[in-house]
Amino acid sequence: MQSFMKPSIPRGTRDFGAIEMKRRQYILNIIKRNFELFGFQPIETPAMENISTLTGKYGEEGDQLIYKILNSRIHENKNKEALKKEFELSLESSRNSEELTEKALRYDLTVPFARYVVMHQHELTFPFKRYQLQPVWRADRPQKGRYREFYQCDADVIGSQSLVNELELITLIDKSFKELKIPVVLKFNNRKILTALAEVINEPDKIIDITVAIDKLDKIGKEGVNKELFEKNVSLKAIEILQPLLDFEGENNEKVEVLKNLVGNNGIGKKGIEEIEYLLRYSDVSFAKIELDITLARGLNYYTGTIFEVKANAGTFTPSILGGGRYDDLTGIFGLKDMSGVGISFGIDRIYDVMEELELFKHEISSSSCRILFTHFNETSQQHCLQLASELRQNGIACEVYPDITKKLSRQLDYANKKTIPFVCTVGSNEIESKAYSVKNMANGEQQQLTLQGMVEVLNK
Amino acid sequence: MQSFMKPSIPRGTRDFGAIEMKRRQYILNIIKRNFELFGFQPIETPAMENISTLTGKYGEEGDQLIYKILNSRIHENKNKEALKKEFELSLESSRNSEELTEKALRYDLTVPFARYVVMHQHELTFPFKRYQLQPVWRADRPQKGRYREFYQCDADVIGSQSLVNELELITLIDKSFKELKIPVVLKFNNRKILTALAEVINEPDKIIDITVAIDKLDKIGKEGVNKELFEKNVSLKAIEILQPLLDFEGENNEKVEVLKNLVGNNGIGKKGIEEIEYLLRYSDVSFAKIELDITLARGLNYYTGTIFEVKANAGTFTPSILGGGRYDDLTGIFGLKDMSGVGISFGIDRIYDVMEELELFKHEISSSSCRILFTHFNETSQQHCLQLASELRQNGIACEVYPDITKKLSRQLDYANKKTIPFVCTVGSNEIESKAYSVKNMANGEQQQLTLQGMVEVLNK
Repeated sequence: MQSFMKPSIPRGTRDFGAIEMKRRQYILNIIKRNFELFGFQPIETPAMENISTLTGKYGEEGDQLIYKILNSRIHENKNKEALKKEFELSLESSRNSEELTEKALRYDLTVPFARYVVMHQHELTFPFKRYQLQPVWRADRPQKGRYREFYQCDADVIGSQSLVNELELITLIDKSFKELKIPVVLKFNNRKILTALAEVINEPDKIIDITVAIDKLDKIGKEGVNKELFEKNVSLKAIEILQPLLDFEGENNEKVEVLKNLVGNNGIGKKGIEEIEYLLRYSDVSFAKIELDITLARGLNYYTGTIFEVKANAGTFTPSILGGGRYDDLTGIFGLKDMSGVGISFGIDRIYDVMEELELFKHEISSSSCRILFTHFNETSQQHCLQLASELRQNGIACEVYPDITKKLSRQLDYANKKTIPFVCTVGSNEIESKAYSVKNMANGEQQQLTLQGMVEVLNK
Repeated sequence: MQSFMKPSIPRGTRDFGAIEMKRRQYILNIIKRNFELFGFQPIETPAMENISTLTGKYGEEGDQLIYKILNSRIHENKNKEALKKEFELSLESSRNSEELTEKALRYDLTVPFARYVVMHQHELTFPFKRYQLQPVWRADRPQKGRYREFYQCDADVIGSQSLVNELELITLIDKSFKELKIPVVLKFNNRKILTALAEVINEPDKIIDITVAIDKLDKIGKEGVNKELFEKNVSLKAIEILQPLLDFEGENNEKVEVLKNLVGNNGIGKKGIEEIEYLLRYSDVSFAKIELDITLARGLNYYTGTIFEVKANAGTFTPSILGGGRYDDLTGIFGLKDMSGVGISFGIDRIYDVMEELELFKHEISSSSCRILFTHFNETSQQHCLQLASELRQNGIACEVYPDITKKLSRQLDYANKKTIPFVCTVGSNEIESKAYSVKNMANGEQQQLTLQGMVEVLNK
């Protein structure tokens, strides 16, 4: 007897069945429709990028999480000694040899987007607005809500410094979560404030350390942040100055006052406050709670202005379900300077989990698109079913004909039940002759005698 | 001065811009809608599979084309000596070590589908009908119409032996290409005939060699096929018997007669002819030309019954744009026996190329979904534009507000032209006061004075 391996999939990856797919498509369709309503156009980039495109963009920790692809036909390489030496070198240093790997899976959609803009700059019209819905891969430790393959769902405008872009994104976020029916709080802040504070406390070169530490406030608390700042050699006096930032609770306009006090006359700080005030004055939200969060920092280093974060404002599971912000020099890494942009990224997987917890997936969202199953007794009645199915499909109605004629009617009905197909029509010689078809509603057992036209009307409801 | 690398993407991969994306979505939407009309439900599987899931399924040549992923955190592996040895071994043998790589990118959607069915067999209702639209990766030599990353678009029924499934797939193929407006010829054949012929000519163990050789008839001609058969040690007498297969041209029913003569009383051959006759009798096509192609073999070894291939029946570029067939033991490789299935795979990239050659992409398919651009003179008029945009979007109309207030009107109009946005509305203090808006049709220059409601009506057309 032959033995078979039990099939499995890599840790941190998932299969999506029909119900999950319907629900995910429901979420993606709402977001996609809103992206289009705001003038964003779709693009797609390859899953594989050259390693040189990706490395050095996500910090040392990020670089470690990039999946690298083994060069194909490595065995055809004649010079095996050189290959061995390269491999040994790659084990010693923390880099992989080009002999071994030249391509990697994309880690996010932002760096491929920057690469795209630079490569296609002469074909594009700026300000360039694109959206992109594609999976990304990270060799992270899997845990609840964290996968090694997950979708990102990004919209960015590049080539415009106007704060109107931020305003439009706020409206887009508000409208999307309203349609998804997820109560949310939209937090925002401005990186210029953090830059200014680093200057004010005389630690301008510590801006990244400070940002990273403050970003952890949620997770490690005020004491934790102070400890980390101290460990990063931020002076005690400077840490002292930063305390009002970590402490203050209050209304948006009160927080603006705190910030004004903190940044004083610092030029970049005043610009940051001006931007915050503009967004508070003009932002047009009818559903989301908008909140200036003066401790919001967001880890990614390329942000330079407004930063966004959205969390569910209900339920017990409230991870970040959207992030984003303005970057003044994203394409600079590829040689195209002075391209300010701003973008957001919806976290589809977490939105899914939040909607599940809040029971927002209604029956219609999750159910089969198939409206009716045709059942039969023999080849003749099955052939008649195929003709009926063809007519229904011409009218845009999804349906199935049970394929096997050897199966009893009870087995055929069982199939409809298990697949939650809402109607069943059984065709025998009487039906073929009279052209009156008995259609059974599987939810309540009611039967109706219908002509083909009548069937179209009932099923189209 | 810092120097930057010129960004590029790996050979054989592609970026898709907005126009290509719209066109691809147009194709995918037609196919997806038809899959749903016939009762197929969507699933998705991860890009990465365990290597053991993929290898040994595509023949030796196929195995060479699988992209393998370097194990992450390879540098953390303490035992570098062992790793080195494994690497050297992997250079000598033609396999890669598990120390080096355990995961690979999927090569097609069929094997992951088989893996999915076996893993989830207890949750699924059989016959199980699924569709799947996802990219696959092959380390093939890139050339026209052949990419290293491309989409597959598959529908399969598994767990039913009924030929009605083949009939339904034929109808689905016909309906899909009719909607895509691509004239096609749908070729089919039956693998049972080839199996029978291998028996008849007393070379049953040469069935794969014979299939592979006949499959190349299109490319290498009759002489080439005979040469290959000879090289594979198929006897001259046997090759002689096969000649009518390679020679015959005629109507479908004439071909059936040729096959009947060839297979004689062979049991499996008679079964094959019965299946062919069933499909010829019942297939319901209104658009495609259906053709029994007795030389159609299709390379993949897992096919055991009906095989399909579709080619464009117009233009000069006529590659295969769909393939498929019945397999009696696809899930057997993962330990689940007796699961007959049948499926088809649309070749999206080639369908795209064929439609481009036949000029089937109408303007509507390729153009921006954005209907109108709002232009302005200052912050006040821009804010008014934002309100108008918000109203239009509530009515489902996609629009943009030019973001920068520092740009001259001519620059703003230029933006609309370059992006082929069909209408422009310029808002100044008069418009704000009168609430009558001048809407310009960018194609013919015509202007209309409209209220907001009037604008909704014009733009909704």
